Amino acid sequence: MKKKLSVVKIGGNVIENEAEMERFIHLFSEMEGPKILVHGGGKLATQLASKLGIASKMVNGRRITDAETLDIITMVYAGLTNKNIVAKLQSKHCNAIGLSGADADSIQAHKRPVKEIDFGFVGDIDGVNTTTISNLISLGLTPVFCAMSHDGNGQLLNTNADTIASELAIGLGEKYDTTLYYCFEKPGVLMDVTDEASVVRHIDSKKYKELLHEGIIADGMLPKLENCFHALHNNVKSVCLGNMFMLDQNNDLFTTITL
Amino acid sequence: MKKKLSVVKIGGNVIENEAEMERFIHLFSEMEGPKILVHGGGKLATQLASKLGIASKMVNGRRITDAETLDIITMVYAGLTNKNIVAKLQSKHCNAIGLSGADADSIQAHKRPVKEIDFGFVGDIDGVNTTTISNLISLGLTPVFCAMSHDGNGQLLNTNADTIASELAIGLGEKYDTTLYYCFEKPGVLMDVTDEASVVRHIDSKKYKELLHEGIIADGMLPKLENCFHALHNNVKSVCLGNMFMLDQNNDLFTTITL
Repeated sequence: MKKKLSVVKIGGNVIENEAEMERFIHLFSEMEGPKILVHGGGKLATQLASKLGIASKMVNGRRITDAETLDIITMVYAGLTNKNIVAKLQSKHCNAIGLSGADADSIQAHKRPVKEIDFGFVGDIDGVNTTTISNLISLGLTPVFCAMSHDGNGQLLNTNADTIASELAIGLGEKYDTTLYYCFEKPGVLMDVTDEASVVRHIDSKKYKELLHEGIIADGMLPKLENCFHALHNNVKSVCLGNMFMLDQNNDLFTTITL
Repeated sequence: MKKKLSVVKIGGNVIENEAEMERFIHLFSEMEGPKILVHGGGKLATQLASKLGIASKMVNGRRITDAETLDIITMVYAGLTNKNIVAKLQSKHCNAIGLSGADADSIQAHKRPVKEIDFGFVGDIDGVNTTTISNLISLGLTPVFCAMSHDGNGQLLNTNADTIASELAIGLGEKYDTTLYYCFEKPGVLMDVTDEASVVRHIDSKKYKELLHEGIIADGMLPKLENCFHALHNNVKSVCLGNMFMLDQNNDLFTTITL
């Protein structure tokens, strides 16, 4: 039987709020068994860019990562955010180790090819180094990944944190029974977006089709759910969607997705 | 017989210069056997602070690390500098892993007690986690440390890079035959400071006393040499002082210090 592994992704809303962050650190450190944390960067990078007089360039709502922006992302994601999370986890006796995809060659990527839009130094993931990552886990360490990869030729690349989380869960799914936790603002997939208690507890392939048909899953939830099923079709055992309180063993108000 | 281990410390002058950095990355990646890199931060942190309108506070030539300055150091040392070094080493097939002292609880410290001067968030090292660091080395990884430690209670601390290098060499000296390389501007200890060819090739305890007596070792070299002998009295096999070209196997123009 395979060992269990939890891959948890948190977003900017948690990182930016000190009280939320403390709560999250507590919840995550209490989770039993091997685990990995993946964090985005949030608005801190935009704030720093603005203080330095560097305009954030957006095309169709997506950030363009030029050389200056990449430096800022490296400072904020891999430096300030990652190291503070690691230090806080250490204070809860969770033996965290902060990583970018360049560290231990853990996430290999290539610069996104230029088509209509030149996204700049943005990485599309080619693979994750599951051997090294599981070796680190075997040492009792908890990897904490920031949203960066590298191209193997010395270039760091800004990389979507959701994708890093799913690629890690997929890659490590061969060795572990992997559960992927996507923490976001809502307590889960809601039947009624105005009612936070209307969480759909369980979605499988059949239920997913129904919810799509009924228009319950639409807009921003659509790519999120597609991403979840992509992971489930590739070695990941289950995906959980909800706010950070889903990490609490005593809470079952969140959405679990299986095939 | 113990395995050999090289602990190399580079300073800001190398980090700040792109061409020097490329040269260093090549030389370091070519070094055989297990190795550790420790880097300072250089002027990049001061430059960033200045751009953000944060004054660098110095007392007796030493930087005071307030909360704002600590954030900048964390961004520059642990983020920008560390991750770019790691990515560049990866491109030379050196499997680097960037670490602060908080990562894997590798360097434990306490905030320097306030006496006449309050240095702020500056760490005095209590110990290095030799088990975890040698486990990482056993995985074929090359740890790259930035000049930061942590107090175990969630606080990151700015920490002298020379001290981190010597404490790592001392701690790992029990398990490895450790050589400590301090890279600085000069090719070694010079008999005549105006003549870069006048390198003293070998200094032992007896020679050290002579050089002190003759006034050859004075001023800035004095604390450096004291630090070297401290390491040699505590498990470190030899200390090498010189510029980065001492890492080249074919170069023997540098100072080797032994007891």
